Amino acid sequence: MMTAPGAGPSGEDALIARYFRPLATDPGALGLLDDAAILKPSREDLLLKTDAIVEGVHFLPDDPSDTVARKALRRNLSDLAAKGATPAGFLLTLALRTADEAWLTPFARALGEDAKQYGCPLFGGETVSTPGPIMVSISAFGRVPPGRMVRRSGARPGDRVVVTGTIGDAALGLDIIRGGAAALVLADDAGAREMLIGRYRVPQPRNSLANAVRDHASAAMDISDGLAGDLAKLCAASGVSAAIDIASIPLSAPAAAVIARGVIGIEALISGGDDYEILCAIPESRFDPFAEAAGLAGVALSSIGTVISGESAPNFLDAHGREVRLAHPSYSHF
Amino acid sequence: MMTAPGAGPSGEDALIARYFRPLATDPGALGLLDDAAILKPSREDLLLKTDAIVEGVHFLPDDPSDTVARKALRRNLSDLAAKGATPAGFLLTLALRTADEAWLTPFARALGEDAKQYGCPLFGGETVSTPGPIMVSISAFGRVPPGRMVRRSGARPGDRVVVTGTIGDAALGLDIIRGGAAALVLADDAGAREMLIGRYRVPQPRNSLANAVRDHASAAMDISDGLAGDLAKLCAASGVSAAIDIASIPLSAPAAAVIARGVIGIEALISGGDDYEILCAIPESRFDPFAEAAGLAGVALSSIGTVISGESAPNFLDAHGREVRLAHPSYSHF
Repeated sequence: MMTAPGAGPSGEDALIARYFRPLATDPGALGLLDDAAILKPSREDLLLKTDAIVEGVHFLPDDPSDTVARKALRRNLSDLAAKGATPAGFLLTLALRTADEAWLTPFARALGEDAKQYGCPLFGGETVSTPGPIMVSISAFGRVPPGRMVRRSGARPGDRVVVTGTIGDAALGLDIIRGGAAALVLADDAGAREMLIGRYRVPQPRNSLANAVRDHASAAMDISDGLAGDLAKLCAASGVSAAIDIASIPLSAPAAAVIARGVIGIEALISGGDDYEILCAIPESRFDPFAEAAGLAGVALSSIGTVISGESAPNFLDAHGREVRLAHPSYSHF
Repeated sequence: MMTAPGAGPSGEDALIARYFRPLATDPGALGLLDDAAILKPSREDLLLKTDAIVEGVHFLPDDPSDTVARKALRRNLSDLAAKGATPAGFLLTLALRTADEAWLTPFARALGEDAKQYGCPLFGGETVSTPGPIMVSISAFGRVPPGRMVRRSGARPGDRVVVTGTIGDAALGLDIIRGGAAALVLADDAGAREMLIGRYRVPQPRNSLANAVRDHASAAMDISDGLAGDLAKLCAASGVSAAIDIASIPLSAPAAAVIARGVIGIEALISGGDDYEILCAIPESRFDPFAEAAGLAGVALSSIGTVISGESAPNFLDAHGREVRLAHPSYSHF
């Protein structure tokens, strides 16, 4: 557990006190001075979520450390939002090769800013040394009224399939960082390149929409491994299928420009990862109030199709109603 | 989050379903089929603890994977015990180079056995791929009656300093694995070598003593980074010092044999890590009922000294009352 320095002149303790104690703003964190933190009882369900990112796998060695911190926490916040939960706090495990001040200072500062912005304080954690890649593992906690977590499994035929924001930006951002086709297409548009890279490095979780998701969605999850694969998971958990109108999938202007040039297909965007948008099923009768709540929350919504009965994988239909087959609907580590 | 396979033919999902779904016995784990787990509200405080182990740092590449699993979970259980908490469940993050069945099968089996034995079911988690060392990060949760977590900070002058079990076995076990001096001393005693190696690889957390610690200790923590360093931390948090009688520090018979041969000093044992015993301060008036409870719980106790006023690091006194100076009282990663 993170502990601030006591009698011990330990470098590990000093590191924690210096960089992470300022983030432990909840009284239950005990200033990171004890072996465990205390979460006070409430009448709500506590949601538990853990998610880790590994250097070279989920982020790039050259990614600025402030973006690594934000990505690590926001991936978890995105899950809480999709489940209809309010953030309550998090635990951090940070595996580092060395205690590099130039890396740690922006990391801790950004993590603290996000913890404050999203109302999700640090409750504890630890640093460990590793000879391998940097790894940031976060367990996040959220609260929902009893029995109200929005599950994957409630989608019903006739529900609208709705997504927030835009899809595929992060996949293009990664392609640009790697000098891929998108970088060539957008060679003259630094602003577009920067926007897409930013979408890869710093997710924008839709926590302002959590209450509305809880009030109106029959099923929801966040899109982290690609729209196509995650929709397939939601449908399977609900025992349904879906028909998706590819032309309705919301794209940012830079993403639309790349697709229009024909060098990258839409399949790459709907199979790409790191969107951190909310995918949900909304009964037709709930769509208007959901859209109104989204408008108030400042989150863009798009209806991209319909939940249908059946057990087959969701159909993605092009402008001519032809099914587009996806070779790799989602990302898998193994 | 761990999710069992839905529509996706993902290897990651299949891995999780195969190895870890059987461990998710609490209904709130939702069979690892959703993005978050649900911990039902209770009137007790929820303790939060996270702890990670890294191959080559906290365990050895040759350690059998069943022992790696037990060590990862039991390190957390040991903290919960020292804080007076009852285990409630855990989240797992497992970073692996490959999905190796020969490694994963014993790992998951042992983790499941410990989860059952200690009443600490798996609520979720994830697997990530890494090109680096294996890392097992666990966040564990425990419950205590409101306000009753046993802290580091309550020790008062006059309290007895008490430890459970024996000290230094794990440090000797590691020395034996590495072919150090202890291996030579115990060259003819395979049973002793095996016992010490077992103490390094598989901690025996004192969860059966948790209620007694909560009822009687003024301060407590588990010993994971060495008795000397951890006692210094407890004293600093409590604003006190301590006088320790080295001859009273409990040693196993093999450890006593090694020390008697003079090739390894007692300092190495009281500064060594991985004991996972409970260190606590017990007011004199509470010692008898605490000892009685420990007897019923089957846990050996030893009084090793007294809490005294002052701010200096604890004194370790030899049989002649001379202070033994410790160069490195505890282990630090950085």
